[in-house]
Amino acid sequence: MANKAPGKADESPRVRIRDPFWDARRETVRRNAIPYQWKALNDALPNAEPSGCLRNFRIAAGMEQGEHRGFVFQDSDAAKWLEGVACSLMSQPDPELEARADKVAETIVAAQQPDGYLNTYYTINAPDKRFTNLRDNHELYCLGHLIEAAVAYYRATGKRLLLDAAVKYADLVDRVFGPEPEKKHGYPGHPELELALVKLYEATGEKRYLRLAGYFVDARGTAPLYFEEEEKQNGNGRFYFADGPLGYAYCQADRPVREQPEAEGHAVRAMYLYSAMADLARLNGDGELRSACERLWASVTERRMYITGAIGSSPYGEAFTFDYDLPNDTVYGETCAAIGLVFWARRMLLLDADGKYADVMERALYNCVLSGMQLDGQSFFYVNPLEVLPEAGSRDHGKQHVLSRRQPWFGCACCPPNLVRLLMSLEDYIYSVDGERVYVHLFVAGEGEFRLRSGKLRLRCSTDYPWDGRIRYSVHTEAPLPAVLALRLPAWSPSYRLRVNGETVEPVVERGYLQVERQWRDGDSLELELELRPTLYAASPSVPEDIGKAAMVCGPLVYCAEEADNGPRLHRLGFDPAAVPEWRYASDLPCTCKEITVSGWRDREWPPEGGSLYRPLGQPDREGVRLRLIPYFLWANRTPGEMRVWLRV
Amino acid sequence: MANKAPGKADESPRVRIRDPFWDARRETVRRNAIPYQWKALNDALPNAEPSGCLRNFRIAAGMEQGEHRGFVFQDSDAAKWLEGVACSLMSQPDPELEARADKVAETIVAAQQPDGYLNTYYTINAPDKRFTNLRDNHELYCLGHLIEAAVAYYRATGKRLLLDAAVKYADLVDRVFGPEPEKKHGYPGHPELELALVKLYEATGEKRYLRLAGYFVDARGTAPLYFEEEEKQNGNGRFYFADGPLGYAYCQADRPVREQPEAEGHAVRAMYLYSAMADLARLNGDGELRSACERLWASVTERRMYITGAIGSSPYGEAFTFDYDLPNDTVYGETCAAIGLVFWARRMLLLDADGKYADVMERALYNCVLSGMQLDGQSFFYVNPLEVLPEAGSRDHGKQHVLSRRQPWFGCACCPPNLVRLLMSLEDYIYSVDGERVYVHLFVAGEGEFRLRSGKLRLRCSTDYPWDGRIRYSVHTEAPLPAVLALRLPAWSPSYRLRVNGETVEPVVERGYLQVERQWRDGDSLELELELRPTLYAASPSVPEDIGKAAMVCGPLVYCAEEADNGPRLHRLGFDPAAVPEWRYASDLPCTCKEITVSGWRDREWPPEGGSLYRPLGQPDREGVRLRLIPYFLWANRTPGEMRVWLRV
Repeated sequence: MANKAPGKADESPRVRIRDPFWDARRETVRRNAIPYQWKALNDALPNAEPSGCLRNFRIAAGMEQGEHRGFVFQDSDAAKWLEGVACSLMSQPDPELEARADKVAETIVAAQQPDGYLNTYYTINAPDKRFTNLRDNHELYCLGHLIEAAVAYYRATGKRLLLDAAVKYADLVDRVFGPEPEKKHGYPGHPELELALVKLYEATGEKRYLRLAGYFVDARGTAPLYFEEEEKQNGNGRFYFADGPLGYAYCQADRPVREQPEAEGHAVRAMYLYSAMADLARLNGDGELRSACERLWASVTERRMYITGAIGSSPYGEAFTFDYDLPNDTVYGETCAAIGLVFWARRMLLLDADGKYADVMERALYNCVLSGMQLDGQSFFYVNPLEVLPEAGSRDHGKQHVLSRRQPWFGCACCPPNLVRLLMSLEDYIYSVDGERVYVHLFVAGEGEFRLRSGKLRLRCSTDYPWDGRIRYSVHTEAPLPAVLALRLPAWSPSYRLRVNGETVEPVVERGYLQVERQWRDGDSLELELELRPTLYAASPSVPEDIGKAAMVCGPLVYCAEEADNGPRLHRLGFDPAAVPEWRYASDLPCTCKEITVSGWRDREWPPEGGSLYRPLGQPDREGVRLRLIPYFLWANRTPGEMRVWLRV
Repeated sequence: MANKAPGKADESPRVRIRDPFWDARRETVRRNAIPYQWKALNDALPNAEPSGCLRNFRIAAGMEQGEHRGFVFQDSDAAKWLEGVACSLMSQPDPELEARADKVAETIVAAQQPDGYLNTYYTINAPDKRFTNLRDNHELYCLGHLIEAAVAYYRATGKRLLLDAAVKYADLVDRVFGPEPEKKHGYPGHPELELALVKLYEATGEKRYLRLAGYFVDARGTAPLYFEEEEKQNGNGRFYFADGPLGYAYCQADRPVREQPEAEGHAVRAMYLYSAMADLARLNGDGELRSACERLWASVTERRMYITGAIGSSPYGEAFTFDYDLPNDTVYGETCAAIGLVFWARRMLLLDADGKYADVMERALYNCVLSGMQLDGQSFFYVNPLEVLPEAGSRDHGKQHVLSRRQPWFGCACCPPNLVRLLMSLEDYIYSVDGERVYVHLFVAGEGEFRLRSGKLRLRCSTDYPWDGRIRYSVHTEAPLPAVLALRLPAWSPSYRLRVNGETVEPVVERGYLQVERQWRDGDSLELELELRPTLYAASPSVPEDIGKAAMVCGPLVYCAEEADNGPRLHRLGFDPAAVPEWRYASDLPCTCKEITVSGWRDREWPPEGGSLYRPLGQPDREGVRLRLIPYFLWANRTPGEMRVWLRV
């Protein structure tokens, strides 16, 4: 029982996960991804470009000679790894890993300058150019990740080394930036520090960090535009996106955030910014900022999000494009953006417990996020398409970002450690507490301990979710206590059955949660049964790419067709809406999972006579086929080939 | 009676066009496009970047001071304009225009160097660097256009000034390049000179030019690759396409042309190269080269061509991608590539009179080629999409090449003058003669005069094609003579009726031509009636983008739906295959044309309740609508908006 979610201390649930579905994935992360990524940070991966990440810190610390390697934000890889390790240590102590992490923390801290500054790129290359190109150069972004790592590591181990360093750097930044006339009026080119400062405030109680986060958020996009002033003053090159369709909307700086009508620009930047906005709206009781969050939420989830939770339609700027523009074969759908959507959704839930946020959080988590990592935890997708023709990726330049195999590492290695830290902190996403109410947002087996106004309550959950819709909770209390257990009723479940101590109850459903209010006694049981069955989904007729098509969905999981099961040329396949799908455990897939088989059809190729490319329209010539669908997150774990989520109906 | 097609002189038809459909377009070219483009060459267009084209010649001639402006191939704009003017003068003398053209010819020739070299870019910038970067710098391409202009101008006016200059430059190139050890073993980076040298051979009878064309064609792509050797020797920069999916296939130099299995790379380059290959196969009786042409023809037209005759699926390299990859919304479909396809098809017909070549030639001509020019002849499309959402062009970087308005001019202004020269030389595409056989490839009203073995025969054609399927020919001879009139029976016409002197006949159909063989007498009449009616066409089920969709086709014309007639969100529209389309003259379109109206349907937007982006699949919710379709070539001549060729069925 380890993890503590942010929020007022007495409200933070203590959560332990013991879940067949998630344990398998988290164990892979512990056994494979964390050691693998440690090798990457240390330039010890045989098949990948050296990262240079930790070496950069040693060079900046004067412990080694050499040149800075990698991106201006290379430092953040170490911080994100460390944050993932911290989360892992919270749920499973590991002295050897902790010792290794201590060394990484020491290496990072060694590069800190006497005044607190800590960035290897500038320290090595241009110590006199600090904070002169916020638009492009990610110093404040890297501080954000340093803070997140430091807070997590402190929570996991009680060790202050990294936290003290982060505080020292944050204090420097607080002296340099702010509304006061003598300070710089800039803000991060890539949002991240804002949400990190909120974490630092919650960890330390120091209000200055909350104020600085608020300053960064509200200074963003105001006139005169800081990035333009900075460009003139410092001779920074012309903004890469200045003349394209994005402009400063690329980094959500085309206007003040409270006035932004739609989710625009780089999707990861957007998610990190909106996460901080939701935090600030909650902590400051800022109704206007909350409205902005709600407006942007609707923009993303009602008009600009794939059914897998992928966001960012275009590789250009890894960005949103426009309403209902959701191409399946050229989508970017960066893993980090889906992770960011999970971050933001959780914060929206803390601000306002509405099941619609949890529905999206769950959808992104079980699909686009998990799709980012190979089952062995050692290769990764940056881009998560919904339709793949391998030939297109290799022969059409416009689709070269769409791969059909996960890659061992990336020059810009943001996604792998981001996945690790999210999966290893899943404890924070399952429950929240509000007064005497315990919200259950995700169905994950294990335990949660909650300090309510009325006393302490423990929930023990057992389930085979998402392979089974039955979720059982047993309640443990020291004495009977009044409380509301608010169990999420997902929008995808058209009906449900709920039993308390074996008896069916029909509680009030409020904004997506079954509100089970009673005097709870030790040993009480709750059994929720959701309607988990394969269902064809349509996209809004406003989405040109999906019109006339359907996707198979089963609860939180989106399914897809792979070439390995259905042969090539998947575009010729179609669903029969009247067919009844079968959903059962598969015996030949590389992990425990349920496959779906269902009757469908395939357009036959034309007979050779009569024109090979265009002909007068004839009768449909179709053959019946048995379609086999697997969970989307599992795709590309067998022979690489075609994949499709949307098939015709 | 003016134009003379190449080929043996006694076989060349003399053709005069008097056709309601084509006269309107050609008159626009004469009245508007030619003077407009003359202004462009002279930097006198108010809303366009100065071209610098003619000024470059004056600078190179020492008549003016200044720097070279525009692309390395800027010279070709003048040559292409001059060729178009020459063709125009052949069919309609115009002393004022001829005087203007004489001046342009004089300006060009003034820049010729004493040894014959004639290229303003090198003469101005680097006279000692001639022929050092064939891969990128288009010197030989420009000579090709100079030759084409010179031959046409000589034919039109009998004036030798430009022809002599072209011969002098060609002789220089023949001294520099060739198989002999002491010569350079290079070839044009952009094919064009090859087909021009064939024209120069046909105009002058000088076999050296034919040999040089053959050398260039067969040296291409042989090992060691000339472009790589040249790069090493001359320090030319790395080839732009070296590391992408195209490599040297971009310029059809990845292997010898006779071994190329598929049409690859830059589509215009490919068409110009294949045109020369067809010429050489015919003139040299080269069966292997003919097989290569046939293989490439099948590659283009059976697997890589849009229904409009557009080719080049990708903006990257303006190139072919792979089989059946025919996206409608990101297509490049350059106007020049469709023009090149017409060039090539005509040469395939001369090599082998098979109606399949004429079918494609006609399809490209009436659709993708004509689409390139606004009705007023003063703005142009470079890219010819089959599906346009204006918002995508402005907000999705991957579709920014897809415009919904024609542009007044282009920095790279290859398409506008290419259109002019094709439309003004349409006489060359209608007929061909083989012994005692007159082939009719295109149905264009006017006259043709043919010298057959048996004597002279004239055909007078009258028709309202493509708005009417009846085509009437009257035969004129000095004395009765035996001949075969081979009238094309288009593949799109499932039936026909043919009357000779009022009596129905059923001649042999051979490879797409109705072979009407008889003793022709002066005054004989032929009336061909083709089955011209609106018909839905499907694409091969191998084309993912078009599966489940249909396009309305009527004879040679592809039709499309525009927002101006059908409202926005065209993707929600569909055809009812059982509905009977109406085809009639439209009263409110900006030129004489027949519209198609037909019953169809539109998917209704979802009612607001129940989830806005994804929902369980319900019953189709459709409303009946009357679709209005206009000829594709006419699109974007009204209020800019959406357009679609393929609608769902």
